[in-house]
Amino acid sequence: MGDSVAEKRKLLNRGRRLRGQVDALERAIEADAGCVQVMQLLVAIRGAVNGLMAEVVRDHIELHMIDPDRIPTERETEAADELASVLHSYIK
Amino acid sequence: MGDSVAEKRKLLNRGRRLRGQVDALERAIEADAGCVQVMQLLVAIRGAVNGLMAEVVRDHIELHMIDPDRIPTERETEAADELASVLHSYIK
Amino acid sequence: MGDSVAEKRKLLNRGRRLRGQVDALERAIEADAGCVQVMQLLVAIRGAVNGLMAEVVRDHIELHMIDPDRIPTERETEAADELASVLHSYIK
Amino acid sequence: MGDSVAEKRKLLNRGRRLRGQVDALERAIEADAGCVQVMQLLVAIRGAVNGLMAEVVRDHIELHMIDPDRIPTERETEAADELASVLHSYIK
Repeated sequence: MGDSVAEKRKLLNRGRRLRGQVDALERAIEADAGCVQVMQLLVAIRGAVNGLMAEVVRDHIELHMIDPDRIPTERETEAADELASVLHSYIK
Repeated sequence: MGDSVAEKRKLLNRGRRLRGQVDALERAIEADAGCVQVMQLLVAIRGAVNGLMAEVVRDHIELHMIDPDRIPTERETEAADELASVLHSYIK
Repeated sequence: MGDSVAEKRKLLNRGRRLRGQVDALERAIEADAGCVQVMQLLVAIRGAVNGLMAEVVRDHIELHMIDPDRIPTERETEAADELASVLHSYIK
Repeated sequence: MGDSVAEKRKLLNRGRRLRGQVDALERAIEADAGCVQVMQLLVAIRGAVNGLMAEVVRDHIELHMIDPDRIPTERETEAADELASVLHSYIK
């Protein structure tokens, strides 16, 4: 995960945004906000969690599924890309 | 949402637990935890978000779908219970 | 559910489209189609199932949550619309 | 996907079970079954679709992410197992 500085920063930003959304949710519950507002916050949080998951899955595939000590074959790279892409559609 | 003190406390507890999980996620990313650990945290967070949503949907149905100023008919109460229950299964 | 002919036809059309997609999935598995093609079919099927669920939830709310023998109050109609709308976002 | 006869049979069985469930759904809509029964059928169908997806993701990871022409390293096998397992929890 720390293999790429840019990738880590990207995940951290997503993680912080998610925490901000969860803080807002907690405040909304505390302030007796209506059910509808709370549900709308949860819709957004769910999207953020799915987006983070899709991102980490992609990282895992790119950084760990192929041993960093060797060069992946073309078929392996293609299979990894296809899985990351289809999972992104399924999870979101 | 503030109609029931017990219900609000329940939601608040769930909200705090969720925030604790998101904090742990952020720390894991910061500490360069492995992708697998981050993904496992996300599995738990997703479950917590779905649980909260199912709970708020139930509250909304019970507290707002039937106008609090009138007494629901038996058929309406039954339809509300059935919807809350089936959505709980679908969302979780 | 049979309360509205137009609504029933809409659900039937969605149901038939879903069955067509599931037939295509079965044929793909039988024909040794690649995993990627099968996963893509499942992405589409998942969308169709969620779409159908959102539709039936809306029907249930509109046809059964408010007893057909009485006129819903404005607040009830609003609460029903809001729930149908937020669930549509969450489920899809 | 045809790489393993046992695996293909497993997927085919799941596909057929899913089609049976979708047929039942179509019949329920045609027969003016209640919204609740239709929603319950959709809960079961959603579970079957997610189960199939988790299974095909596992196949794809095991059969295609590592080029069949070479022997995976221990780290690669472990990373594949971990991903398949965590995605199974997330999707189902």
